Amino acid sequence: MFIIGEKINGMFIKVRQAIKERNAEFIKELAKQQLDAGADALDVNVGPESVDPLEDMKWLITTISEVTKVPLVIDTTKPEVMEESLKLAAEGAIINSSHADNEKLDIYIPMAKRYKAKLIALTISKSGVPQDAAGKMELVTNIIQKCLEYDYDITNLYIDPVILPINVSQQNAVAVLEVIQQIKLVSEPPPKTLIGLSNISQGTKYRSLIERTYICLAVAFGLDSAILNPLDKELMDTIITAELCLAKYLYCESFLEAHRKKYV
Amino acid sequence: MFIIGEKINGMFIKVRQAIKERNAEFIKELAKQQLDAGADALDVNVGPESVDPLEDMKWLITTISEVTKVPLVIDTTKPEVMEESLKLAAEGAIINSSHADNEKLDIYIPMAKRYKAKLIALTISKSGVPQDAAGKMELVTNIIQKCLEYDYDITNLYIDPVILPINVSQQNAVAVLEVIQQIKLVSEPPPKTLIGLSNISQGTKYRSLIERTYICLAVAFGLDSAILNPLDKELMDTIITAELCLAKYLYCESFLEAHRKKYV
Repeated sequence: MFIIGEKINGMFIKVRQAIKERNAEFIKELAKQQLDAGADALDVNVGPESVDPLEDMKWLITTISEVTKVPLVIDTTKPEVMEESLKLAAEGAIINSSHADNEKLDIYIPMAKRYKAKLIALTISKSGVPQDAAGKMELVTNIIQKCLEYDYDITNLYIDPVILPINVSQQNAVAVLEVIQQIKLVSEPPPKTLIGLSNISQGTKYRSLIERTYICLAVAFGLDSAILNPLDKELMDTIITAELCLAKYLYCESFLEAHRKKYV
Repeated sequence: MFIIGEKINGMFIKVRQAIKERNAEFIKELAKQQLDAGADALDVNVGPESVDPLEDMKWLITTISEVTKVPLVIDTTKPEVMEESLKLAAEGAIINSSHADNEKLDIYIPMAKRYKAKLIALTISKSGVPQDAAGKMELVTNIIQKCLEYDYDITNLYIDPVILPINVSQQNAVAVLEVIQQIKLVSEPPPKTLIGLSNISQGTKYRSLIERTYICLAVAFGLDSAILNPLDKELMDTIITAELCLAKYLYCESFLEAHRKKYV
């Protein structure tokens, strides 16, 4: 599975402070820690309190690029910040994210093409978040249709079926799993699937347990990618073990150590 | 999920000793502990070293029946021990187990009918354990055919697709998951599915991690029942949380405590 580390996000107070103080060492260390723990890519988000999101994002990208060449997942709702970030980031960056409305897709799909970027598209429209599989799949169909119109390579598209906290909607948690499975039948080749894992456990008492159990279910249903906390060792152990049990790689006695990737 | 506690088994040295010394308190306590931890039924096995399997089994059943009325899972390869045990155990006992050969099924299906017992049938034949889903499903079809011949209620049939250790055959681990899913399409109503979980981790370094990850995958594929160690708290937590995420019951903040059943 393609693992995107979630920690470089200004919503975390220490990251917010590091951005404010231009503390490059802190950011570089957080990047390295996540890669050491097994992340394949890093989400980058300046957080909602940033006074100058464009400059903050550019500083983060430049700083992280000094220690790694893994893909950066540019996490912003501002198209102008997205575009400038894509100019700066290495090829293979990931747009996080577009909604499923045509007016958003008409911005982000051409932008993804322009910068040879991958694209995360959420099953959210102006009407909100559909909580059943049928409603989500309707938006998936629209996203794929738009990609075909723009001749955008579907294998570079990541559909995020939008997790809500389990204490808000269990129905939604089940629908996300159904969508992860159904998407593989919707086009040939199919788009990839992605979830923002930590949402599932928001406001609950057993966050790590719920997260690692839910991702295991999602892996069983065919999930391709997740944005998550790779520093949660038990969570990473579960993902590695789930892939072992599904024969995604060959067994060896120290499979956990062998499959925790090293910082590059 | 229907959880069968595996601990009352003479292959464990302390249980073997308790049987030998007719230490009823030890056995009763082990029964209670498993029920407290969330078991719905208890496997009972005198172990391979028993000198008098029939008398040992009868003593175990009588002893356990003094503290609980949950179904007992009579775990023996000897038809005469099985039959005498079924006479003694309460209605709703479970035969563990028949192979998929006609000569075994011709013994155990009529026996199950005679004593209104449930029946576990393994996908093992004289040719061994098929390690691919197609081979296992062929045996499943034969088991169901035989049940229909004897007019045995398919909803009382538990198919065990036979787990092998993950370090022996990853292909088999995947095939078991496929069979768990495919069985639901093979007849209407379908039989139930069951696995003997601890086999998956035999001889590996991370037994509990592999067991709780594999059962989570199996729950995602639709598993109905498992024989396992309910005293492994993390394992039970995973099962309860997996069922929460699949909306098998309603969320409450203390769902772990709420869904660990109390001894009755």
